[in-house]
Amino acid sequence: MKLFSNRERTDPIKLGIIGCGIAAKKLHYPALKKLKERFTITAVCNHTEPKAKEFSKIVGDVPYTLDYKELLAREDVEAVDIVLPIHLNRLVITDALKAGKHVIAEKPIAGTLTDALELVELAEHSQKVAMIAENIRYRKLFQRVKELINSNAIGEVNSFSWDFYYKFDARNEYAHTEWRKDHKYEGGIITDAGVHNIAAIRLLFGDIASGSAMTWNVNPEVGRTDSIRMNFKTTSGTHGSFNMSASVEGYSENKLLIFGKSGTIIIEHDDIKVMNPEGKSFKESMNDDGGFKAQFENFYDAVRYGGEVVSTFTEAQKDIEVLLKAYQSAESGVPFTIE
Amino acid sequence: MKLFSNRERTDPIKLGIIGCGIAAKKLHYPALKKLKERFTITAVCNHTEPKAKEFSKIVGDVPYTLDYKELLAREDVEAVDIVLPIHLNRLVITDALKAGKHVIAEKPIAGTLTDALELVELAEHSQKVAMIAENIRYRKLFQRVKELINSNAIGEVNSFSWDFYYKFDARNEYAHTEWRKDHKYEGGIITDAGVHNIAAIRLLFGDIASGSAMTWNVNPEVGRTDSIRMNFKTTSGTHGSFNMSASVEGYSENKLLIFGKSGTIIIEHDDIKVMNPEGKSFKESMNDDGGFKAQFENFYDAVRYGGEVVSTFTEAQKDIEVLLKAYQSAESGVPFTIE
Repeated sequence: MKLFSNRERTDPIKLGIIGCGIAAKKLHYPALKKLKERFTITAVCNHTEPKAKEFSKIVGDVPYTLDYKELLAREDVEAVDIVLPIHLNRLVITDALKAGKHVIAEKPIAGTLTDALELVELAEHSQKVAMIAENIRYRKLFQRVKELINSNAIGEVNSFSWDFYYKFDARNEYAHTEWRKDHKYEGGIITDAGVHNIAAIRLLFGDIASGSAMTWNVNPEVGRTDSIRMNFKTTSGTHGSFNMSASVEGYSENKLLIFGKSGTIIIEHDDIKVMNPEGKSFKESMNDDGGFKAQFENFYDAVRYGGEVVSTFTEAQKDIEVLLKAYQSAESGVPFTIE
Repeated sequence: MKLFSNRERTDPIKLGIIGCGIAAKKLHYPALKKLKERFTITAVCNHTEPKAKEFSKIVGDVPYTLDYKELLAREDVEAVDIVLPIHLNRLVITDALKAGKHVIAEKPIAGTLTDALELVELAEHSQKVAMIAENIRYRKLFQRVKELINSNAIGEVNSFSWDFYYKFDARNEYAHTEWRKDHKYEGGIITDAGVHNIAAIRLLFGDIASGSAMTWNVNPEVGRTDSIRMNFKTTSGTHGSFNMSASVEGYSENKLLIFGKSGTIIIEHDDIKVMNPEGKSFKESMNDDGGFKAQFENFYDAVRYGGEVVSTFTEAQKDIEVLLKAYQSAESGVPFTIE
């Protein structure tokens, strides 16, 4: 249960950022810069000094620490944005909530189901805001697709398929990150990137009930798993598929097809095409910043006004559970079910 | 074992056609017309007289019968082309081989695995040519793709995915066929059409070892199953996927993606694109008649010269086994394996 006594406060949230890597610099900070009336970055932390120092300069010469516990001890930090390697989430999120800070942490919530469930439990008993930065949940694109489905634009949906093929290699700056290459969480790049797809799938079609998967690896340089194909059913009986390979040469695709009784929705990049055989087809473009600004707005509203968190720990735990169960299924050859 | 004593004969094969439906008229006859020096149609048979009469006129006013056994009894019929509803194949093929006729029969070989295996057994002990008209096996398109794979055009293949989405409805003449709507074989349109895809997949990547599938039905008017998604591994460890829905509205796709270590092959309709990140990409078009002419040429060579049958009963049995096992897997939720 959360108690909010600060409904009258409208001052910016004093935010500490833990982790000064690419995601902090390229994804979170650009959104925070647009929200200066709501967030004041008061401290940053990175365990290596050059990155901490560099990022502290970028965000306005704020104090930096090398030990996240020092940042958590600061009185001028009321909330933290945790942007760390996946396997560190459990420890640092736990310490942050226990230190009485509101938390927004980068997806996925954790690298194991045990860690994820522990964090959900912790969030439930915390009076602080606990949120996972799953930007997909804030993208206008998927909100619009959901509206279209709900407004019966293609009739009853019977199935969907998301094919996501690209080449993740040295040309991608994220591929240089040591914790990504030698990943301490199952699934490697599939977990890291694919959790966004699962979040979108759950947002659009509801919870996944059962399925099966196969995984394999093409390029050991990017980790131990770079390819997955999974088929599954949602609790409402829709048939879904998520197919990803991060080691495709000479071809790329990122397309979600949604098949309805009377039409098909095609989502590619920022475009939504509604295809209807009766000539009522149309196309919309839903360019946004990836949902990052809306995500921090939600965090602000939750902290300052007790607003409902959209991307809760529970949702994030359910996202990652699908992938972790899928890996187990691929390993064992036994289909998975989710309670 | 087959014994051929007629290596010196070059006269046309005296061919009886059993079944005067759309496939006989639109697929087989156009190819036979081009091969007049190799085939003389001497009789046709259909259990309803108007169709028998009409087709007999089309092919040159040959005698027609309503009972296939009468056709099999004719001395001027040395081989038969069986183009019947799937569930009749076992009975009519058996009678034809036992009557001492060479047999070419429309795919799939049978609607059940028991029937298919029985026919394989029969063919093995027959001295007559036994062939399934799986035209895919004769398409230049797939022969060329196989060459490209073997010549290392995209490096080692790790996976492939075939997506086949279209709308099978009253606008398609095959959809009016009563035996297709009220199908006496599992899988309905998936069996009927999808067996071509499985044949191509086996031709390119070898036998399928194990997998799982889900099936569902969108449009009861075309049968009890019109959609499938299956993931599988080949005996050589390649990861494959076959996804088909014959009830997609407003969208269609028929695309096979083959992912290799150094590139991707994209096959759409008659086009092969070889995509290579090092700029060595190219496109080829492989327009043919669907392989029908080459298929009958193979039949002729087998009958007259003892040439090897490419599309044997055994291959056809293995094709259909994949789909039948996939349906069982979809039903039971238990992955399938193939010995």
